[in-house]
Amino acid sequence: MKNSIGTSVVLTLSGESHGPMICAVLDGLAPGIPVDEEVVAAWLSRRRPQGPADTSRREKDAFSIVSGVFEGRTTGAPITILIPNEDVRSADYARTMGLARPSHADYAAHIKYAGYEDWRGGGHFSGRITAGIVAAGAIAAAALKRKGISVGTHILECAGVRDIPFDEIDPSAQIESIQEMDFPVLSDVRGAMEARILEAKAARDSVGGIVQTAVCGFPAGVGEPWFGSVEGVLANALLSIGGIKGVEFGAGFSLAGMRGSEANDAYCVKDGRVLTSTNRSGGVNGGVSNGMPLIFNAVVKPTPSIGLPQASVDMSTGAEAELCISGRHDPAIVRRVSIVVSSLTAIVLCDLLALHFGTDYLR
Amino acid sequence: MKNSIGTSVVLTLSGESHGPMICAVLDGLAPGIPVDEEVVAAWLSRRRPQGPADTSRREKDAFSIVSGVFEGRTTGAPITILIPNEDVRSADYARTMGLARPSHADYAAHIKYAGYEDWRGGGHFSGRITAGIVAAGAIAAAALKRKGISVGTHILECAGVRDIPFDEIDPSAQIESIQEMDFPVLSDVRGAMEARILEAKAARDSVGGIVQTAVCGFPAGVGEPWFGSVEGVLANALLSIGGIKGVEFGAGFSLAGMRGSEANDAYCVKDGRVLTSTNRSGGVNGGVSNGMPLIFNAVVKPTPSIGLPQASVDMSTGAEAELCISGRHDPAIVRRVSIVVSSLTAIVLCDLLALHFGTDYLR
Amino acid sequence: MKNSIGTSVVLTLSGESHGPMICAVLDGLAPGIPVDEEVVAAWLSRRRPQGPADTSRREKDAFSIVSGVFEGRTTGAPITILIPNEDVRSADYARTMGLARPSHADYAAHIKYAGYEDWRGGGHFSGRITAGIVAAGAIAAAALKRKGISVGTHILECAGVRDIPFDEIDPSAQIESIQEMDFPVLSDVRGAMEARILEAKAARDSVGGIVQTAVCGFPAGVGEPWFGSVEGVLANALLSIGGIKGVEFGAGFSLAGMRGSEANDAYCVKDGRVLTSTNRSGGVNGGVSNGMPLIFNAVVKPTPSIGLPQASVDMSTGAEAELCISGRHDPAIVRRVSIVVSSLTAIVLCDLLALHFGTDYLR
Amino acid sequence: MKNSIGTSVVLTLSGESHGPMICAVLDGLAPGIPVDEEVVAAWLSRRRPQGPADTSRREKDAFSIVSGVFEGRTTGAPITILIPNEDVRSADYARTMGLARPSHADYAAHIKYAGYEDWRGGGHFSGRITAGIVAAGAIAAAALKRKGISVGTHILECAGVRDIPFDEIDPSAQIESIQEMDFPVLSDVRGAMEARILEAKAARDSVGGIVQTAVCGFPAGVGEPWFGSVEGVLANALLSIGGIKGVEFGAGFSLAGMRGSEANDAYCVKDGRVLTSTNRSGGVNGGVSNGMPLIFNAVVKPTPSIGLPQASVDMSTGAEAELCISGRHDPAIVRRVSIVVSSLTAIVLCDLLALHFGTDYLR
Repeated sequence: MKNSIGTSVVLTLSGESHGPMICAVLDGLAPGIPVDEEVVAAWLSRRRPQGPADTSRREKDAFSIVSGVFEGRTTGAPITILIPNEDVRSADYARTMGLARPSHADYAAHIKYAGYEDWRGGGHFSGRITAGIVAAGAIAAAALKRKGISVGTHILECAGVRDIPFDEIDPSAQIESIQEMDFPVLSDVRGAMEARILEAKAARDSVGGIVQTAVCGFPAGVGEPWFGSVEGVLANALLSIGGIKGVEFGAGFSLAGMRGSEANDAYCVKDGRVLTSTNRSGGVNGGVSNGMPLIFNAVVKPTPSIGLPQASVDMSTGAEAELCISGRHDPAIVRRVSIVVSSLTAIVLCDLLALHFGTDYLR
Repeated sequence: MKNSIGTSVVLTLSGESHGPMICAVLDGLAPGIPVDEEVVAAWLSRRRPQGPADTSRREKDAFSIVSGVFEGRTTGAPITILIPNEDVRSADYARTMGLARPSHADYAAHIKYAGYEDWRGGGHFSGRITAGIVAAGAIAAAALKRKGISVGTHILECAGVRDIPFDEIDPSAQIESIQEMDFPVLSDVRGAMEARILEAKAARDSVGGIVQTAVCGFPAGVGEPWFGSVEGVLANALLSIGGIKGVEFGAGFSLAGMRGSEANDAYCVKDGRVLTSTNRSGGVNGGVSNGMPLIFNAVVKPTPSIGLPQASVDMSTGAEAELCISGRHDPAIVRRVSIVVSSLTAIVLCDLLALHFGTDYLR
Repeated sequence: MKNSIGTSVVLTLSGESHGPMICAVLDGLAPGIPVDEEVVAAWLSRRRPQGPADTSRREKDAFSIVSGVFEGRTTGAPITILIPNEDVRSADYARTMGLARPSHADYAAHIKYAGYEDWRGGGHFSGRITAGIVAAGAIAAAALKRKGISVGTHILECAGVRDIPFDEIDPSAQIESIQEMDFPVLSDVRGAMEARILEAKAARDSVGGIVQTAVCGFPAGVGEPWFGSVEGVLANALLSIGGIKGVEFGAGFSLAGMRGSEANDAYCVKDGRVLTSTNRSGGVNGGVSNGMPLIFNAVVKPTPSIGLPQASVDMSTGAEAELCISGRHDPAIVRRVSIVVSSLTAIVLCDLLALHFGTDYLR
Repeated sequence: MKNSIGTSVVLTLSGESHGPMICAVLDGLAPGIPVDEEVVAAWLSRRRPQGPADTSRREKDAFSIVSGVFEGRTTGAPITILIPNEDVRSADYARTMGLARPSHADYAAHIKYAGYEDWRGGGHFSGRITAGIVAAGAIAAAALKRKGISVGTHILECAGVRDIPFDEIDPSAQIESIQEMDFPVLSDVRGAMEARILEAKAARDSVGGIVQTAVCGFPAGVGEPWFGSVEGVLANALLSIGGIKGVEFGAGFSLAGMRGSEANDAYCVKDGRVLTSTNRSGGVNGGVSNGMPLIFNAVVKPTPSIGLPQASVDMSTGAEAELCISGRHDPAIVRRVSIVVSSLTAIVLCDLLALHFGTDYLR
């Protein structure tokens, strides 16, 4: 499968940045899940560019659901969501046509598609496609809620400014509010982050960061030991999001410097439930969920579109060339990526649950 | 798919730590690939416990290939590799029976399999299963070599001691020698690493680390933008290996602190080939290979089996209990994991190449 | 996968009979294939109800391709085709609401989807969805033509009237003309077939038949011995088409009465090419194509919607009830199914070719 | 996937006719299913050549289960079954080496695998591989029984002699006994069938037939409308079995000559259960099970290995040649295929049930 993810619950994405619309098909969700279009709209609004720290491209995201929902509930048949593209200025891109933008997909796509790719605005590689993920994710998250499962993502780090991590708080207490924030942070760091983003923007440059996700209420016993691990399927999904270049679970890369006695999560029993007193495993052992919150981080590279001149190559002639990008771009996409990560996580977890407990588990 | 990975080239793993044997089926490899059993044996020997820094369990790995190879070459039909288990001491494990070992899969497996799991030595979750990955990986790596593609993994960090990274050298110059080292490092750090491992062992504790992999010669244009990205399929594979809790590509998590102007890989043209002057992208843009070496790191947590007493839970009664593990265990598995990572990488890349270029590409 | 078929070339279908539109996403086709909207329109017109022997529901099929095609050619990214529904009269169906139509999917769907299904006009089970197959199939067939591969389906039998079979003629001579016929038959049987259909219609009844497909120019060596046989993947696809209840290859069920000496296809060599002098195998041995034309038959049951009263059950109360269906229905769908079979065949064969020869084979 | 079938419950087959053993890996079955090796042996014995009407090759089928079963029950981890090959006489085949046997896979395999195939005894294409299907199927059938689901296959027709079909009896009454018969027929036709087989054998020829399968107790609501229909997944599986060239459900090809009023299955209610008074749909509507017995037929072509001289081609030179096959062959494989069909059906149905109801449904 190429532009599809999942086995029992499957998301298929199509569309290009400058085409007429983005299309997302979400198949396999249990029948009977209420679909609230206002919630979908709210999730899309969190992905949308909003202030000076985002691109000035304005997106309305006037989506329509054209199949799979009947009388306000999922039917069990595939859900098709269409999101028209608006405020498209292909002219901005025409200026860079033929020049590969560094650390963008332009060159790799040109080789892969033998020059037939729709290059306008990154085409099918554009972050614009993630609007489809978010619309579908809003529905998947509503399905998860029926079993008390919540997904929330905050900006753990942006441009060197760091938020407090989930393991210093009780994630279940804040996950609902995080899910509804436009600028999701757990502490008072928004001002500092935005200031650094605007500094970079003023320098015609961009910044990166790290997003951190918690999933509360996910049952133990889900996932496979080999090749269908909870970690593997989530990482596979998240690494498809443009700009994400690494994923770590629990204590992640910091485990390299720990001893086993520090890294191991000791068991304890509270109110008859088996828990661990720490959660350095991020809720997964041997690929299988252990009943603790799933916790994972994803690194988001700085937006590759920057205003500074860069060394490029002309793909039609093969010659070196200097590139100046002048379109409207995000100096940071970390904020916008956070809701995409929550969305894709919700979809992937619906799939894992359906595989283990059956297609009707979330009904 | 559960214990299988891949679409066109597929690896299926079965077997348990204390069962009669491990079985690996590698299906879909091109016909006509020479299979050298001595090379397979050499790869297996690198995974095997070797010195005081490893477990004292001795494994002979007397494998046999019982299908898919005829007159010394692959036939195109599935290759079945059987690796008998030997020197098994279930008694060591019997003592911990019913007590969940912290940060092991015991508890998650117990819930998942409703108490029917083969718990001896971790059963199907055991690192022993990776012998099947390595035997299959040796054959896959031989297939890749026919197109000039090499995979090598070294220990970038262990117990706080750091090797030089691939991006400070030309990986293509050292990848062949790295592939054949028992203790793969790029600089003179073996002594320091082993000393730290033995320190931890003396303290009945364990240590972790980071392995770094380079793939040279991989063509541009392979991988998919959404959900079949080179990064996603590799991460999905690697995160199935016991102990790996995070994967990052190129500059990985350090991209969070960079500006776009630092993070972007400028293009250049050398001898008519399009290259980038840095490789912070790790050879992948937009999910698709760009012709530069693939570079990625995986973090290996400290071995969870340690001799120190730990807080556990008795899975049959649900009561808290203290656990002392007394079997033979690795104080560090970083060295042994490195060949497993190379092996699984080789298998996954054969799959990506077969999907893009056809099943006969590597013939 | 549920509403998707294929591995490298994948078709995903969504939409309901009385929803706003049908959506087909065709992913994985090689870049650079010319897409001629007039050809797509022509294929759709062959599926459309046309005369007194079809339903009187009029469908315009004003499709639009909203992704994956750029400057008249496929880009390699997924192709999204939207086909609005028009001339929908839900009132016709409201009358049967709650009563399961015999040999329709109503009851099975009601159980499967726990009563949440969109029941209007059969919802997602409606033959209307096949419009998406045909639009995608027209593009797939254009891709096959680039390698000289043609697909054609004729009505071998309808209401007891029999056409001549492909093995009595040279299929390659007539396959192009068959592909363009509105009422595809190889001999002068249209009048007799239509007369029998109208007889059944007058009796408020319906008739069935058999369609026969030939594929010329398909290369030898494609398909898998176990579980990916050319026969298996085609049958899996065709048996999803509403009304098809059986598929046979080559001499099919008549092989039961033959001896080996009659059934075996003797080899011969013509102009240096290895052929067989008969083709009772239908072009496939051991699941793998042998270079001869692929020939297969599919049986189409009589349309289950008939005007005669039938014994039914009220799904809300569980009580027996008499059902009279009064909407507009096809007294025979055999003619309309023939282009759907060709379309789905073309899509499946693109997938098999891409898996074996790589994604760019048809470019 | 190539030599694997299934999504949640997956069977992977490897091995060659003249290699050391056949290997079957059955993954995804619920934990806790009792595994009775005597039952597995009994199923294998039904597939084994037995009398003068079968090949004189004697197979012992001394299988061993080397993973996935612990203390007599499935663990949930993959089950590996090894079946050694014995009484192999490659010399019989050496005589035909290089000559393509008509209607065998030899030529297609030679093209597909570029001449690297293991040609001895048909290699991986051999019917010998079906021993792995039967061993795995015996375990799958035991799992189905826990929910009261039974699978049985009889010889509906062989060499022109016809047994009574399932729809003339109550299949649930005879399905258990059919499952245990060495020569499974519903009426007194064994003698006539064997006489005709021996006639063909005496003429150095072979005969074909039709097997018919019933599944009783299968719940309604399972299967998918498009591309995962119960019919499609079963047909895909069965058409991988050597010699099966067609599959039909319910009234199958005879529906072509019926009117809707004859073909439709009227609903009725008995003891509060919704049933149909006929079962021409074979238990499936719109791809989804309707709660009636699943009934389907598969045609088995005459064994292609016959003693009569045949026109062949020398694959190394490309020249025409006459072939005389002198090995030990089955004059009919219909009897032996029947247990293979039941086995594969059981495996596929376990997969469909696990997908719909979850992995633990059959526990």
